[in-house]
Amino acid sequence: MTSPDQMVRAVQSYVEAFDKGDPEMVVALFAADATVEDPVGTPPHVGHEAIRAFYTKSMQTGAKLHLDGPVRVAGDTAAFAFHVGFAKPGMQVDVIDLFRFGPDGKVVSMQAFFGPTNMKGF
Amino acid sequence: MTSPDQMVRAVQSYVEAFDKGDPEMVVALFAADATVEDPVGTPPHVGHEAIRAFYTKSMQTGAKLHLDGPVRVAGDTAAFAFHVGFAKPGMQVDVIDLFRFGPDGKVVSMQAFFGPTNMKGF
Repeated sequence: MTSPDQMVRAVQSYVEAFDKGDPEMVVALFAADATVEDPVGTPPHVGHEAIRAFYTKSMQTGAKLHLDGPVRVAGDTAAFAFHVGFAKPGMQVDVIDLFRFGPDGKVVSMQAFFGPTNMKGF
Repeated sequence: MTSPDQMVRAVQSYVEAFDKGDPEMVVALFAADATVEDPVGTPPHVGHEAIRAFYTKSMQTGAKLHLDGPVRVAGDTAAFAFHVGFAKPGMQVDVIDLFRFGPDGKVVSMQAFFGPTNMKGF
């Protein structure tokens, strides 16, 4: 089983990848057949190719992630609150993500919780 | 469908119920056959009677909830980060909860994400 420390490090790498604008660094965190549902309620991106395309596009917006408080770890899942900042001051999205991990430490499913009420300054 | 405003108010009522030490106020937020998995990975409490017993016991610890940042709303689900404080200074648990709502505005499933790494001062 993936340890809490490994899960926290994966979340930190995810945030760092956005800072660097490095989609490959994100793709490397996911299992080959992982699913990304961002936001929850939209069709999931399935597998490395779709995940790479999604994060490449996301990073092109200039989005930077800022963790709000500690990563919560329960069983095989990490939950974390963060806000997304952009070049435009005051533009922000508040999000909570869930990362579920497989036994090899790769993320097998990601869900992002946010909606219109969590988007400011657009 | 439950509106984002209704979901945010339900979360606020949940926090307020802990402040008052009022388990019935929490039970009233849940559907009759709702499930409460707290923390994730433990057997769920199912239905009003089990949920009442669980929250009565939880509130007897003197636990008070403090929201950390805005409630995130995606589709039928509210996600929120908070910390639990106790009478003993420095004792704290950092948690993220998910509340999934039915069409009548009642919570049909609750999941609490935290683990040993999120408990301080015990």
